Amino acid sequence: MRIIPPLYIITPTYRRPEQIAELTRLAQTLMHVQNVHWLVIEDAKEKTPHVTELLSRTGISFEHLLAPMPESYKLRKGSKPRGVSNRNRGLEWLRENATSGVFYFADDDNTYDIKIFEEMRSTEKVSMWPVGLCTKTGLSTPILKNGSFSGFFDGWIAGRKFPVDMAGFAVSVKFLLERPRAAMPYKPGFEEDGFLKSLAPFEPKQIEFKAQNCTKILVWHTQTRKNEPALAIDTAKYGNTNLIMLRQQIV
Amino acid sequence: MRIIPPLYIITPTYRRPEQIAELTRLAQTLMHVQNVHWLVIEDAKEKTPHVTELLSRTGISFEHLLAPMPESYKLRKGSKPRGVSNRNRGLEWLRENATSGVFYFADDDNTYDIKIFEEMRSTEKVSMWPVGLCTKTGLSTPILKNGSFSGFFDGWIAGRKFPVDMAGFAVSVKFLLERPRAAMPYKPGFEEDGFLKSLAPFEPKQIEFKAQNCTKILVWHTQTRKNEPALAIDTAKYGNTNLIMLRQQIV
Repeated sequence: MRIIPPLYIITPTYRRPEQIAELTRLAQTLMHVQNVHWLVIEDAKEKTPHVTELLSRTGISFEHLLAPMPESYKLRKGSKPRGVSNRNRGLEWLRENATSGVFYFADDDNTYDIKIFEEMRSTEKVSMWPVGLCTKTGLSTPILKNGSFSGFFDGWIAGRKFPVDMAGFAVSVKFLLERPRAAMPYKPGFEEDGFLKSLAPFEPKQIEFKAQNCTKILVWHTQTRKNEPALAIDTAKYGNTNLIMLRQQIV
Repeated sequence: MRIIPPLYIITPTYRRPEQIAELTRLAQTLMHVQNVHWLVIEDAKEKTPHVTELLSRTGISFEHLLAPMPESYKLRKGSKPRGVSNRNRGLEWLRENATSGVFYFADDDNTYDIKIFEEMRSTEKVSMWPVGLCTKTGLSTPILKNGSFSGFFDGWIAGRKFPVDMAGFAVSVKFLLERPRAAMPYKPGFEEDGFLKSLAPFEPKQIEFKAQNCTKILVWHTQTRKNEPALAIDTAKYGNTNLIMLRQQIV
């Protein structure tokens, strides 16, 4: 019997009106994937009960972890390093619990063709592939010229050594374990680049190209429109109705 | 052997940068549902090749149909009756091909917990349930007081007899076939109300309530942020690279 390497899917998440919808959609995608272990890591001090309930009924093997953003970053003006504490918590969990397989940072709002999970499963060091709907170019990808690496295509290069999207790469667990100091920096816009640089020694020429030599888009950086918090329901007016139970699901 | 009634899922769609991502996500949801027949109906004069290709590889039983919006509505200022020609084409297909089961209008950008499909499968006439992330109230649902129907909760009532969301109801095929004139009007904002009124004789008191007497949110009216068309790729500069093949997937 051939053993299928495990996939560790690290999903940072946070409370917002769309959270349960997004996690439901991603769970139903992962339910198609064999030998997957889903690390759902909330930027919160306490586990959200609806997340706990959702995870327990998907049948997917999972961990439900917490990693609140440090207070110093929360107070900072401008863009915040969202998801960094979560992803670093995921790396910490892998160091304590995993010995083989591959990990991937999968945000809860992206769209994943299930084929990408089989593409990434054979990653030996670091693999990459195109991401659609990403930046103003509509695409982020390594460039392969006549089959060989020749740079990166992305709407925002910004001096990055690895100008790629979070959804565009996977890393082998073994490769991570050999680099005990690898981590993601709290630096908005430079999270991917900083993390991939922290995997040194690792150079772009070592990238393993997936998705038919980076010719297929199997992941999209979709973003869901934010909703205002639901209006309060007048509990006096709607006592003894189903709205009382529904209200608990939308706050 | 018990026969499972078929579900006909009518999905209007149109070309835009997010189209393949959305249909991929919905296809992967429907892949979990038994005895489903997916009617994917494009507002286009020709089938989009990437849609054809996607449908053929999902393994889902499907029809790929066309129903362009009539020119007179396209030229109209203000909001357009998007999806109406598609949904009416779906009804026409049902009248010609279906004899039993249940149909549901499922837009490609909503989020569906797979449990909703088993809820709707037993619909005898018209069933309804709550929809989350809908209008400014964050919720659209029939109101049940002490277990009996007592009106509708929706952020936009507007004199509608049936102030519900497109994702909030399903109809039995037999019930439709008994109403040969039922159709959706080309009236933005009043599509659901107009269609449900066209099912007369049918009154709110006849609604079958699903999702545990309308106490569970299993469908969300999520909306995906629109992307600008991808920037053109300089084919001279990027000749002999993977960008040439990727370009065909983003235009």
